[in-house]
Amino acid sequence: MKLADEVVDTLNDLRQSIDNIDSAMIHMLSERFRCTKRVGTLKAAHGLPPADPDREAYQIDRLRKLADQARLDPDFAEKYLAFIVREVIRHHEAVGRSTAIQG
Amino acid sequence: MKLADEVVDTLNDLRQSIDNIDSAMIHMLSERFRCTKRVGTLKAAHGLPPADPDREAYQIDRLRKLADQARLDPDFAEKYLAFIVREVIRHHEAVGRSTAIQG
Repeated sequence: MKLADEVVDTLNDLRQSIDNIDSAMIHMLSERFRCTKRVGTLKAAHGLPPADPDREAYQIDRLRKLADQARLDPDFAEKYLAFIVREVIRHHEAVGRSTAIQG
Repeated sequence: MKLADEVVDTLNDLRQSIDNIDSAMIHMLSERFRCTKRVGTLKAAHGLPPADPDREAYQIDRLRKLADQARLDPDFAEKYLAFIVREVIRHHEAVGRSTAIQG
């Protein structure tokens, strides 16, 4: 049973690291959405268009390069950004609906 | 143009925060996949099943509670986990194919 115990210990150790990373991610995602909500409010208040293709192209290029340096698949980094942006759009649409309701 | 300059400054400031957060996320995602790759290798070496429903239920429950504390939508936290797990499965399948090719 010695080997099995060692395996279980190693597995639990890796899972603790995964849980720690996920905790950090949740808090950073919360902070990121706080920023994008402020961007959305600012753009709406000053009549700026919600989408900015140049900014998005810059973000994709930047994250792909960062991923490459961090030995993360650059395609996955781009998928991560698209995943987050979908949620940001959902927030902005919710704000838009709320504004429309309020007149 | 005073107001416009202030708006642009605020927008650039928020975007700098978003870029900083994304940089941290990319590096943490890379580290998270290093952990799950080790988990996958360990499980394969010791004939453990790749999926663990109890572990997954624990992760979902934990992340939803954390999200609630961090004022992040718990449904989004669960979507985040599902998004990551899909990529982990893709990695494990790739390792499985590679092992099969090597005999």
